[in-house]
Amino acid sequence: MPAYTLASRDASPPRPDTTVQIADGVVIGGRAISVIAGPCSVEGRDMLLQTARGVRTAGAVALRGGAFKPRTSPYAFQGLGEAALDMLAHAREVTGLPVVTEVLDPRQIDLVSRVADVLQIGARNMQNYSLLAAVGESNKAVLLKRGMSATLQEFLLAAEYVMTRGNHAVILCERGIRTFETATRNTLDIAAIPILKRETHLPVLVDPSHATGKAHLVTPLACAAIAAGADGLMVEVHPNPERALSDGEQSLTIPQFDEMMRRIRPFAGVLDRPLGAVALQRAS
Amino acid sequence: MPAYTLASRDASPPRPDTTVQIADGVVIGGRAISVIAGPCSVEGRDMLLQTARGVRTAGAVALRGGAFKPRTSPYAFQGLGEAALDMLAHAREVTGLPVVTEVLDPRQIDLVSRVADVLQIGARNMQNYSLLAAVGESNKAVLLKRGMSATLQEFLLAAEYVMTRGNHAVILCERGIRTFETATRNTLDIAAIPILKRETHLPVLVDPSHATGKAHLVTPLACAAIAAGADGLMVEVHPNPERALSDGEQSLTIPQFDEMMRRIRPFAGVLDRPLGAVALQRAS
Amino acid sequence: MPAYTLASRDASPPRPDTTVQIADGVVIGGRAISVIAGPCSVEGRDMLLQTARGVRTAGAVALRGGAFKPRTSPYAFQGLGEAALDMLAHAREVTGLPVVTEVLDPRQIDLVSRVADVLQIGARNMQNYSLLAAVGESNKAVLLKRGMSATLQEFLLAAEYVMTRGNHAVILCERGIRTFETATRNTLDIAAIPILKRETHLPVLVDPSHATGKAHLVTPLACAAIAAGADGLMVEVHPNPERALSDGEQSLTIPQFDEMMRRIRPFAGVLDRPLGAVALQRAS
Amino acid sequence: MPAYTLASRDASPPRPDTTVQIADGVVIGGRAISVIAGPCSVEGRDMLLQTARGVRTAGAVALRGGAFKPRTSPYAFQGLGEAALDMLAHAREVTGLPVVTEVLDPRQIDLVSRVADVLQIGARNMQNYSLLAAVGESNKAVLLKRGMSATLQEFLLAAEYVMTRGNHAVILCERGIRTFETATRNTLDIAAIPILKRETHLPVLVDPSHATGKAHLVTPLACAAIAAGADGLMVEVHPNPERALSDGEQSLTIPQFDEMMRRIRPFAGVLDRPLGAVALQRAS
Repeated sequence: MPAYTLASRDASPPRPDTTVQIADGVVIGGRAISVIAGPCSVEGRDMLLQTARGVRTAGAVALRGGAFKPRTSPYAFQGLGEAALDMLAHAREVTGLPVVTEVLDPRQIDLVSRVADVLQIGARNMQNYSLLAAVGESNKAVLLKRGMSATLQEFLLAAEYVMTRGNHAVILCERGIRTFETATRNTLDIAAIPILKRETHLPVLVDPSHATGKAHLVTPLACAAIAAGADGLMVEVHPNPERALSDGEQSLTIPQFDEMMRRIRPFAGVLDRPLGAVALQRAS
Repeated sequence: MPAYTLASRDASPPRPDTTVQIADGVVIGGRAISVIAGPCSVEGRDMLLQTARGVRTAGAVALRGGAFKPRTSPYAFQGLGEAALDMLAHAREVTGLPVVTEVLDPRQIDLVSRVADVLQIGARNMQNYSLLAAVGESNKAVLLKRGMSATLQEFLLAAEYVMTRGNHAVILCERGIRTFETATRNTLDIAAIPILKRETHLPVLVDPSHATGKAHLVTPLACAAIAAGADGLMVEVHPNPERALSDGEQSLTIPQFDEMMRRIRPFAGVLDRPLGAVALQRAS
Repeated sequence: MPAYTLASRDASPPRPDTTVQIADGVVIGGRAISVIAGPCSVEGRDMLLQTARGVRTAGAVALRGGAFKPRTSPYAFQGLGEAALDMLAHAREVTGLPVVTEVLDPRQIDLVSRVADVLQIGARNMQNYSLLAAVGESNKAVLLKRGMSATLQEFLLAAEYVMTRGNHAVILCERGIRTFETATRNTLDIAAIPILKRETHLPVLVDPSHATGKAHLVTPLACAAIAAGADGLMVEVHPNPERALSDGEQSLTIPQFDEMMRRIRPFAGVLDRPLGAVALQRAS
Repeated sequence: MPAYTLASRDASPPRPDTTVQIADGVVIGGRAISVIAGPCSVEGRDMLLQTARGVRTAGAVALRGGAFKPRTSPYAFQGLGEAALDMLAHAREVTGLPVVTEVLDPRQIDLVSRVADVLQIGARNMQNYSLLAAVGESNKAVLLKRGMSATLQEFLLAAEYVMTRGNHAVILCERGIRTFETATRNTLDIAAIPILKRETHLPVLVDPSHATGKAHLVTPLACAAIAAGADGLMVEVHPNPERALSDGEQSLTIPQFDEMMRRIRPFAGVLDRPLGAVALQRAS
């Protein structure tokens, strides 16, 4: 079976946890628990700014938001594209939050990299090897989501694809796998967390929003992920989920996100891990 | 779609959490977190007593141990049968721990009930409706494990089968579902916990041993289960897992179980839930 | 990994195909393709007789019909029980078709055996080992359905359970497995047919009704099963599927069943396999 | 739920079967059964030519062969790239067989299109929407493989992505889905064939090589696919599978492929469908 080498923790002595600095003073991995939050799609300047300010106040260390959206149907909202990138840049300027956004195509990387601090590879593209190679040649951190039916072995080999091109700043994100169960959108593979933490030195985040597809399950699964050893979370937040153009059912409101942060904090405390924060001087 | 009624939390006002008293002073469900522990199979009087004492000291509230084992192969060890029941009775007498053991056949219920405080229905029998009906007519508490490919809807309907026969003392146990992932024996469906807690008033336990099949994953998943709101755990413990006749790979040693208990305690504390304990006067 | 021995084709020379005689002149396995048909549940004397006559005329060699039904909900129709057994006996007397019916409980075997020529073990009970052992001690042929999430290895080990008790008249039935796909009730594992034919000497049937859950898919999958090497089919037929008390959506009408038989016949012919038939003298 | 429109058969009257002409005199879809065959990877000029001649003689209508290979590991053989394209062009010139080869990246389309008659989108890229859009803007036929865990709805929406860009020459290929079963590499979803033939007017092929991962299962599943109504097959053939650089276990030898063709022919005959053939004047 093919093996991962660069991604492996296995060495003598074992490789310590990698930390990925995504902006001045913002690090993913290591002791602190990092929470990335924001809307599924960037839908407008105001909603984005409102969300960014809300999640920053609640303790998020980075803003997520889709500009180019991979949608199952060609007739569904595909994202605002370049206009969304401008809005993300503006939100970063105002709030100081670094930006995580998805890239779908090798030809988009330069454009997206002008704004993004972290290039996200979505679940559908986890085995899009030319895209993995392309972000492997960029100088941006990469947030790699597990494919819907990818084994952990395949997930780590996807990370290895990025790393073999020279970019070692890879952050893994478990986001649920596809099973027969229909009560949730996907099934969060909670065991993936301790397995990945043992197998690899890369930081491991969890996305409880996509894993469940239901807002009321996000906080319990966020708590579980922290307790299982995750290095952080990626969570969908929308100022008005009922009007969201995508994924409204799984988005938290800003007050619900604040509540989630308050609920996970003591679990992080049990593990003697602080919640990450963006230094005050970064934001206006 | 067929609906569960007796198992449902839905009522006006919503039904409160059911507590199941399995022995004098030992209750599953409610505020306390309850941990059931013991060997996969009862392999002998000494190993059972050693395990029972060890898990009791570490904080378990009940002893599990298989007398009749449902094994995939007819040539695998099938359990010690009636001799094991005697050993379980002895261990209970010595330690005061109530006994949880599996019943495979309606014709065994009377025999097993002489010793068991809780009748376990294993995952393979979750849709063995004549067995469900038979334990539904007994006066023992029932621990019902989720089938390997049962939806949560089907799981609750299995509980409903027991309850329609008059026995409402049903404890649910999530133990992992079958997926494509091969890194673990099963995939723990962590979202099942908050979903079940919302849908039903019955207590919800988690079995991290069967869910993962690997001892080193038991404690992280036990922590996650508590954080997600489980009412307790069922864990395999063996004095010498390398020599176990079944499931050795997933069994904790007694010191590892003690360590697990120490690790879950502060997570329970975050939720203001005590770990259950067996009253001192119960044991010699 | 535990191995099957009695069920295995592996011997020197390899064991030839087993044929299971289920009644005078009615054999499952061997060169002929055998089709078993009838309603999901026996709902009444007239509907059963009408169906039995219809499927016999169309070429079925045995009548299936549930007397005791394993239903997901305790509130769903559970079968007519003993009354249904009488109806099955009557239909057999009139049509000469041997009877296949499910047994759910070891305590039912004597009762059901008075009428049944073949004891069916349903998918939910494939790992109900006490039931497997009990039918293994009976003198009736056993039709064993694959569990919804059973591997082929587990399926063969379930057959081995029956055979170790002395009953070697086991017929296997692939009926679909549980996957993420929601367009069908289950996913027919068509590769199971050549794998089982290679691994075991036991006859292999396919149930395209449960595999798909949709009547319009039954005939194409029946044709595929024959082409892949199946020894026969088990198909649900109802005189009026829209009024069926269970599984109406997947039942063929009698004319549709007749059409299915006409469609599979030339595929069997390609393989130089005749469709089985019940000798004329057997029926009134 | 998002709907496919261009791919749908639903119209008044229902849309007839689409035929896709991939070269002069070579059509996929319609009455004839079309078989595409060739090596997983193009490994050299001689092996490719030998395979092309062999499969052409046996009745294949097109040659498949990977130049750019999507491999799970970055350390596995990734294909010969442009050199392989030259070899494919040469094999086409010599044998007259049109060429099907995979494209992994929008930036490769022009290069690959100089040689390919059909652009293949692999299973891992079924939801690589920028690649789908890019081939949708090309003037080449597209062979779209189902994703490993894609529902049929998602599969048809992926076809719709291509078609909305103006390219309606889309050929669908079922190649197995990921399940818990480990006896095969994937589980062929045989019901996908009649479902797709009912839902869409596009041609539907089946890849029994990837579906099973085992050479001895290819022919039985090829027969089943034809019987279920598939419009053709895509099969891996290698002159010496034991020395193949990829997928050797699932490749047929040239004589085995010839035998497969002889086995499927009478099944096609039952359906009154001829096996497609390349006109003699096309080849040297």
